[in-house]
Amino acid sequence: MHEHPVAIVGASGYAGLELTRLLARHPRIRLAALYSDRWSDERAGDRLALEGPAATLRYLPLAEATAADAEIVFLATPADVSADVAPRLLAAGARVIDLSGAFRLADAAAYPAWYGFAHPAPGLLAEARYGLPELARDRLAGAKLVTNPGCYATAIALALAPLVKAGLGLRGGIAVTGLSGVSGAGRKAAEDYSFVEVADDLRAYRLGKHQHTPEIEQTVARYAGACGPISFTPVLVPIRRGILATATVRLEGPPPADLQDALRRAYEREPFVRVLAADRVSVKDVVHTNRCHVGVAVDARAGVAVAVSAIDNLVKGAAGQAVQAMNATFGWPETTGLDLLGG
Amino acid sequence: MHEHPVAIVGASGYAGLELTRLLARHPRIRLAALYSDRWSDERAGDRLALEGPAATLRYLPLAEATAADAEIVFLATPADVSADVAPRLLAAGARVIDLSGAFRLADAAAYPAWYGFAHPAPGLLAEARYGLPELARDRLAGAKLVTNPGCYATAIALALAPLVKAGLGLRGGIAVTGLSGVSGAGRKAAEDYSFVEVADDLRAYRLGKHQHTPEIEQTVARYAGACGPISFTPVLVPIRRGILATATVRLEGPPPADLQDALRRAYEREPFVRVLAADRVSVKDVVHTNRCHVGVAVDARAGVAVAVSAIDNLVKGAAGQAVQAMNATFGWPETTGLDLLGG
Amino acid sequence: MHEHPVAIVGASGYAGLELTRLLARHPRIRLAALYSDRWSDERAGDRLALEGPAATLRYLPLAEATAADAEIVFLATPADVSADVAPRLLAAGARVIDLSGAFRLADAAAYPAWYGFAHPAPGLLAEARYGLPELARDRLAGAKLVTNPGCYATAIALALAPLVKAGLGLRGGIAVTGLSGVSGAGRKAAEDYSFVEVADDLRAYRLGKHQHTPEIEQTVARYAGACGPISFTPVLVPIRRGILATATVRLEGPPPADLQDALRRAYEREPFVRVLAADRVSVKDVVHTNRCHVGVAVDARAGVAVAVSAIDNLVKGAAGQAVQAMNATFGWPETTGLDLLGG
Amino acid sequence: MHEHPVAIVGASGYAGLELTRLLARHPRIRLAALYSDRWSDERAGDRLALEGPAATLRYLPLAEATAADAEIVFLATPADVSADVAPRLLAAGARVIDLSGAFRLADAAAYPAWYGFAHPAPGLLAEARYGLPELARDRLAGAKLVTNPGCYATAIALALAPLVKAGLGLRGGIAVTGLSGVSGAGRKAAEDYSFVEVADDLRAYRLGKHQHTPEIEQTVARYAGACGPISFTPVLVPIRRGILATATVRLEGPPPADLQDALRRAYEREPFVRVLAADRVSVKDVVHTNRCHVGVAVDARAGVAVAVSAIDNLVKGAAGQAVQAMNATFGWPETTGLDLLGG
Repeated sequence: MHEHPVAIVGASGYAGLELTRLLARHPRIRLAALYSDRWSDERAGDRLALEGPAATLRYLPLAEATAADAEIVFLATPADVSADVAPRLLAAGARVIDLSGAFRLADAAAYPAWYGFAHPAPGLLAEARYGLPELARDRLAGAKLVTNPGCYATAIALALAPLVKAGLGLRGGIAVTGLSGVSGAGRKAAEDYSFVEVADDLRAYRLGKHQHTPEIEQTVARYAGACGPISFTPVLVPIRRGILATATVRLEGPPPADLQDALRRAYEREPFVRVLAADRVSVKDVVHTNRCHVGVAVDARAGVAVAVSAIDNLVKGAAGQAVQAMNATFGWPETTGLDLLGG
Repeated sequence: MHEHPVAIVGASGYAGLELTRLLARHPRIRLAALYSDRWSDERAGDRLALEGPAATLRYLPLAEATAADAEIVFLATPADVSADVAPRLLAAGARVIDLSGAFRLADAAAYPAWYGFAHPAPGLLAEARYGLPELARDRLAGAKLVTNPGCYATAIALALAPLVKAGLGLRGGIAVTGLSGVSGAGRKAAEDYSFVEVADDLRAYRLGKHQHTPEIEQTVARYAGACGPISFTPVLVPIRRGILATATVRLEGPPPADLQDALRRAYEREPFVRVLAADRVSVKDVVHTNRCHVGVAVDARAGVAVAVSAIDNLVKGAAGQAVQAMNATFGWPETTGLDLLGG
Repeated sequence: MHEHPVAIVGASGYAGLELTRLLARHPRIRLAALYSDRWSDERAGDRLALEGPAATLRYLPLAEATAADAEIVFLATPADVSADVAPRLLAAGARVIDLSGAFRLADAAAYPAWYGFAHPAPGLLAEARYGLPELARDRLAGAKLVTNPGCYATAIALALAPLVKAGLGLRGGIAVTGLSGVSGAGRKAAEDYSFVEVADDLRAYRLGKHQHTPEIEQTVARYAGACGPISFTPVLVPIRRGILATATVRLEGPPPADLQDALRRAYEREPFVRVLAADRVSVKDVVHTNRCHVGVAVDARAGVAVAVSAIDNLVKGAAGQAVQAMNATFGWPETTGLDLLGG
Repeated sequence: MHEHPVAIVGASGYAGLELTRLLARHPRIRLAALYSDRWSDERAGDRLALEGPAATLRYLPLAEATAADAEIVFLATPADVSADVAPRLLAAGARVIDLSGAFRLADAAAYPAWYGFAHPAPGLLAEARYGLPELARDRLAGAKLVTNPGCYATAIALALAPLVKAGLGLRGGIAVTGLSGVSGAGRKAAEDYSFVEVADDLRAYRLGKHQHTPEIEQTVARYAGACGPISFTPVLVPIRRGILATATVRLEGPPPADLQDALRRAYEREPFVRVLAADRVSVKDVVHTNRCHVGVAVDARAGVAVAVSAIDNLVKGAAGQAVQAMNATFGWPETTGLDLLGG
């Protein structure tokens, strides 16, 4: 079997590490290069318990990232870095799967406000295919540039899309709270993310300003249809990995359908989405897997439906999803290299 | 100074323990009796690091609880036990401060659905004074029966009341998410609350069915005015103590006032409430204190205001608030015995 | 390829669950029956995210455990249950791999003091093969009864054996401290293991009385040679899984060899043991894997060598090791079904 | 009552913060100045929930620390900073209580190896009084320079001193393991102490090289008598605060006394030391208090005694102990300002 050479740029961040582990075992590709300034010149096998040839790779400086050694390049870099690097790699003929937000928003004008930089390659935004196979599978085959969804957007869009398709959320808005483990903030030497500051604590952050907010709205609108504005309140919780999101959708009258059933029908053929009672959806059951668990409960008294979803922010919210999307671009079974995770 | 004798019934639960610690140091009362079946006949000083005479008290069986030895009796018992015990103690002349939900709802008919029992003393519901001094101080002086608010209701009502008074939440509803540490579930030998099941996990529970839901609505309606229905989604998080609540209120047009300022004005004279930027409200800063931290952020894009509040569920959400209410019933400064906590 | 049918008795405990996950993916066996009173009649796929035919198995009551449906039976039951059940299964022709301590001690007379019961089948103790392949591989081929090592014994014996072989620990004794995550205590509805009691806490327990103590001494003596008495102090720490053990061995004069090198030589061909600098050995790097990380540091000033080792108590300390031993009994590569774990 | 003005240098570290909280409530002193570069010019009341005049203090830059505004200066600075600053303050007439290791070792020659700097004021080492009142109370009255013990040294010396006095540990050595919460590493923006790196993990560090090691030996030798070498293995555990230490002492023959009783007699008049069964000593019971809990268990089979002790590293291991020592220098009851902590 032909093994496609693959490179990872930004291999020492938490998403990059997870990607390294997954790709080192993937049966259809060959890990050809790892780029990381932090670990430059170190052996991968000394940093991660890798088996086989991947263990002998040495990390190379980010500046040397090239399309020469890889057919597919995964970018696990900050959004502004990805926005700069991707065009060059694409021009050189590589396929790019970008895990940052650099190519997620259709509107280049939105970047300064949400991401803090003017987009250097606005022309690519229309070319990027959104790497959420459950909603956007049909545009992934053969994609040259895949933009991997944000972790919050993944969890929330998978919970909301079938409900909005069923007609919910048209009037009134949708109130979303997203609870995230600390690895969502990336690998950082920051006092704010030190153990002593984070443990035993809960804190909401970037209220109304989180950069995944426009992505959530864009994704729901594009793949499920129009709905009211979505407010998003992220909360930092003291766990290492995992996201639990709750979305409260106001009902106008009785719900138009059995909502739990709408979820079930939407995902019955999806290998990575499981529909459970809303109070059975839990982070513990999805960490270290590429699964998303979703459920919805109707509260007729208060006139709302509350959808709940859980993912591992580093797997279905980042590295696992990127591998799933790569599989889709090649037409391989989407579970390839992902089916032996967790349990 | 006359020292008023006080008893605690249910002294070995988490709220009962906190109450014991607080009352053992309170300068105006004398801890006279502790009731607990679990620790019956043990010395309090062997269970808790108490100083002074309280250490020598021996726990007595619950069934022996009497008004003979105490002027004020705190009930830290399950709601159905409180509902049975309180009438007897009141009839015998004691004042009762009940930390359960037994006397929180005005409508006796609501008990079967929300609390799982028919109320045995519906006549007392109208007599019970709600022990949330910041909203209901004026009815506490001399109260015979104080019903201590639920932990979630405390956090949420303190955040919402000034906003609803400012005219928010009339149309559309209010979507509340409450994150609670595990001590909120009480002291239990239950597999579901074992360390291995709870750590590293997040899970929503009792969606639309939590017994604090009608209390939240009743409290906001009574002390702030009418608003739309409040939906409530509680989430269990792996911390020992603390609650962080977020309440998303839909705006009709621009907000009617500077909302953060509305909070500030509402609480400027309150010793236990601090108003902070919404993303500075955190559990870590309030645990082991009787404080509530609140803040609100307006998200004009999504057309909502998001209020955030944090308390220690065992102090401001239970034992500390009960002591504050006792102080109010006697006309003592409300901070008496509470000012040296935490910091 | 012939698939050997396998049963698990005690499938709902933490070790049983891990075993179910591992065996459901093992390429050489077929999971044929799961026994658990707790989940009797439930589908395995509703409790665990299993793929394939294992998901459709229904848990059967423990009392129905039989050798009829399985060639190999794993017992993940308490020691006294295993001691009762194993003889019957062996007599009926099954191979048994017991994860409890029922067959670990050579001396039946030691059971009442350390395990709290008189051994019902002392004749089997001499037949049981110790399932620690790194030290006892040569006696595992074709074994009918494998006694899987204790989690602490695994971590400590792997760290100490090469050092004792190098001549250390003859005079003076060896002082071992073992830090264990809470899953080591099993799945229990016990207040002592509730989240609120365990989180933020550290506590030593069963000082000098832990049932793994004689097993540690027996294992070191049998596979490495005589040494002084080993004292063992277990400590409960608030993590879900993982053990870190430190063993302080007094030196008489300068160390007889480069001790780190002695570890390296002992394990250079072992797929599951890695030798690292003692301060690089960490629980995080081994959880969810079948690996043991070990290292040793010499403190010439104090005249001691300190060996450190880390394992996942549920994998290398229980289910993974049991699968590794099963592989050894069949002569399969020991990594079969274990090589895709973690990373 | 005369209130003595007090300053804290290094007020924004974890020990400095705890000290600020304690001194702000201390009835015999007045907090007069707070020095911190990190928070320079901020109001203390905006960083900590302080009541009263302390809240209005503004942090001043470290370089401005002077004896002019304070009778007593607490140094909560790194050892090399303390070593530079203390002589100047002493010369200017202030009393100094130093929480670092700058003045703990009697032998100036030991500083380069253990602390990494040549001591700039070796003459002061003989003048510094060791601030562990339970062992060294008699030299504290009127002390000009108090050197506050290390957190590990406090826990371990309090557990070992009565045993060594009883004749234990003469031959053979003593093997100590110390488990510490993460605040022991100080407030740092370091990746190694980030939540994601520390949570769910256990790791031994600085084996045989921890700077508290010579202090432990010196303290035991000075206040309890000669014993064999003490080896020390510190372990980082994922809790915010607290230390649990275990010390394994080899017995030559039967123990010379009832050891638990030796502890009890040693500490029967100490307000801050409680003697409990060794398996009842736990971090949870001492955090947020100035207490040390100790116990000892004899393991006759292995020929050892194992002493266990627990403290809060930031209170009895740092700020609380410093206040206790200050009280002792003035001849005030040692519990002044400390008796209302925790419980």
